[in-house]
Amino acid sequence: MQFELEKAIPVLERTPLVIESLLYGLDDEWIYSNEGGDSWTPFEIVAHLVHGEKTDWIPRTQIILGEGSKEFTPFDMEGHIKEGRGKTLPQLLDEFKVLRKENLAQLKAVEISPDLLNNTGIHPVLGEVTLRHLLAAWVVHDMTHIHQISRVMAKQYDEAVGPWKQFMGVLGGRR
Amino acid sequence: MQFELEKAIPVLERTPLVIESLLYGLDDEWIYSNEGGDSWTPFEIVAHLVHGEKTDWIPRTQIILGEGSKEFTPFDMEGHIKEGRGKTLPQLLDEFKVLRKENLAQLKAVEISPDLLNNTGIHPVLGEVTLRHLLAAWVVHDMTHIHQISRVMAKQYDEAVGPWKQFMGVLGGRR
Repeated sequence: MQFELEKAIPVLERTPLVIESLLYGLDDEWIYSNEGGDSWTPFEIVAHLVHGEKTDWIPRTQIILGEGSKEFTPFDMEGHIKEGRGKTLPQLLDEFKVLRKENLAQLKAVEISPDLLNNTGIHPVLGEVTLRHLLAAWVVHDMTHIHQISRVMAKQYDEAVGPWKQFMGVLGGRR
Repeated sequence: MQFELEKAIPVLERTPLVIESLLYGLDDEWIYSNEGGDSWTPFEIVAHLVHGEKTDWIPRTQIILGEGSKEFTPFDMEGHIKEGRGKTLPQLLDEFKVLRKENLAQLKAVEISPDLLNNTGIHPVLGEVTLRHLLAAWVVHDMTHIHQISRVMAKQYDEAVGPWKQFMGVLGGRR
């Protein structure tokens, strides 16, 4: 599928509602359980998404489209810790919804021609990337975390499903 | 996490809205693209979920709780084909929402004690399974397909994300 802004934006618009629908009002056991070790809980994943709205996608779009240095500020993979501190999940979900709306309004306010999608910035690890790469990655990043939340939740029932585990793709099964 | 009906039902209740939020109103390219070969499109996944509401989870609960034979009818993994024929995605999403609501109403109408969760049925492949296994599998099955839809959608941008692919868990990357 070719990247087209008018097909990408509707996906980005839906993500806050998808994640709210998945998590809002569930028992804390669903929200604060992880996949073991230092893996993330659904709560931490939402905090990470909030942090991305503040420091990643639109700030980097502005760097690409702006007049100054093309170098992106490194993204803080621990940023969710400070982001979530002292907050409830409903607070984070609301914050994500508001920030995403504002960020997409900013994106839509710029006339982004297909040509402009070829403009570049410098990622601290990946090197030169285009605006097209960045905006496509924003969409896939949303999908990565929906994917992750559904897996984290499924794993809580890893034992409860008994022999069904072998049929459940999300638990490593064959379907 | 132990299986408890009152923590499982809220997840089952949310799934139709999660999937509607993910897909409703998106361009056909998102809805009718798959992962290659005979893998499923988001449209086919929703048709499969509808088919499961009709023939899988609650019918099998009734077999376990009923007086007759304990043997489950085999589930038709091709059932989504007939289920989706001639329908639009919004029709399938609505059907899923209504059926899920009816099925959960039926489940709540039965007084399911923890003891009753140990009652068993005979799965055509897995053999003896408990009602607890079946209901936990219903939840994980929802998660499997949310997981799958997010992956199918992400893969459409496999190339568009350029070098970001290595950071995207859903595309096999390391984050």
